[in-house]
Amino acid sequence: MDLKQSARDLAIEYLLQEIKKGNLKAGDKLLNERKLSENLGISRVPLREAICTLSTLGILEAHQGDGTYVSDSYSEIFSNIIKKYGIFDRSMVDEVFEARSLFEADAARLAARNHTEDDLVKLEQALKKHENALTDYYEEKLKDKDMMELDTEIHLGIAASSHNNFILEIVKSIRYVTLQQDYFSEQYTLDHEHFKRSSIMHREIFNAIKEKNEDLAYKKMQEHINEIRLALDIESIRRDIK
Amino acid sequence: MDLKQSARDLAIEYLLQEIKKGNLKAGDKLLNERKLSENLGISRVPLREAICTLSTLGILEAHQGDGTYVSDSYSEIFSNIIKKYGIFDRSMVDEVFEARSLFEADAARLAARNHTEDDLVKLEQALKKHENALTDYYEEKLKDKDMMELDTEIHLGIAASSHNNFILEIVKSIRYVTLQQDYFSEQYTLDHEHFKRSSIMHREIFNAIKEKNEDLAYKKMQEHINEIRLALDIESIRRDIK
Repeated sequence: MDLKQSARDLAIEYLLQEIKKGNLKAGDKLLNERKLSENLGISRVPLREAICTLSTLGILEAHQGDGTYVSDSYSEIFSNIIKKYGIFDRSMVDEVFEARSLFEADAARLAARNHTEDDLVKLEQALKKHENALTDYYEEKLKDKDMMELDTEIHLGIAASSHNNFILEIVKSIRYVTLQQDYFSEQYTLDHEHFKRSSIMHREIFNAIKEKNEDLAYKKMQEHINEIRLALDIESIRRDIK
Repeated sequence: MDLKQSARDLAIEYLLQEIKKGNLKAGDKLLNERKLSENLGISRVPLREAICTLSTLGILEAHQGDGTYVSDSYSEIFSNIIKKYGIFDRSMVDEVFEARSLFEADAARLAARNHTEDDLVKLEQALKKHENALTDYYEEKLKDKDMMELDTEIHLGIAASSHNNFILEIVKSIRYVTLQQDYFSEQYTLDHEHFKRSSIMHREIFNAIKEKNEDLAYKKMQEHINEIRLALDIESIRRDIK
């Protein structure tokens, strides 16, 4: 391994370790290049390469004229990878929904198995926020996009309650693919009533998790994902989004 | 966005597109930097940064003094990401086996649903290779590592038969994590007889896939993964591998 490459890898490892340990948190600004290269005892070229690599991955973010920050979109790394490198076998929307209906159901099963009391409190709050927003939504004070954000909080909350970070990251990444590809824009929504039904179904999934009923949590999540799929104009998505 | 960054991103996009289109295949050598920068109309610094980023991801490989090649370990990208950025909630081995017992079972279910005749032919070959190797293995002419390679061919063949590349990549990535972390070294294998049982179980999974029996394929894969888990010294792995 040449020296420059090893200095770059050192800097990458160092920055990732700092993030893992929590010494660098989302939104934190990195020391300037001069100080950082002094601290690490490496020159600025490999340091810059390290920062560039981590920026491409979405772990760091360069703010023009203001230095480099730790990205708060850490969870989008997988999704960036999938979007950039994912070569789908069939249509992307078909594969993504097939994966969601299995993986999110798995996550719900594990949430029923592994959740803590704290998870239930957080989930309950996320459910209430979604439920309370429904009136505003149907009075057109909120957009589909706003509802989807509240929905995301519930789905990722369930995945987090699995206490399996591998599975959480996978669920997040599929989620971000669908959000970034705009599957849920007004344009592709056939049935706006589905937010009402979602609200009821979320409650059912939550109750199954709370009762530690793994099979029911799995089944209810699968029904829910299939329901979402039916509310969308899959034909158009299949045609428009490659 | 500054110009240098946009030139780098352009080069990354270009190289990835060439790989996606199949114009650049695993093992191919890139044009030298001078030609490539001329063709793309960008200077060599951002081009070098692009190559460095793709190398960190494991998509390209620099061969000392011999230029840059397209890596044939494309499928290890996810696994690199997981290893580098994965912050596990509990022990890594516990989360990985929990994920395997669900995701590989999902993949088997989809293989039962989506497989082609060609998939069955390839799977049959992989099964026979594993079965034929058993005698050599028990006469100590083959190592655990060799058996694991034959095993990998079967497991990835099943995931590929799902015809869902998202799921295939996830299964590959968990697989590579376990292989790279050496879960299956002699050191951690409690019961070397498990290769015999694996051979029988692979057949059962295969038959369920062939008969398009989704539930059975799921169940048999789950039993198989649990069986593997029992053949390993999980306590030691938990202690040794962070």
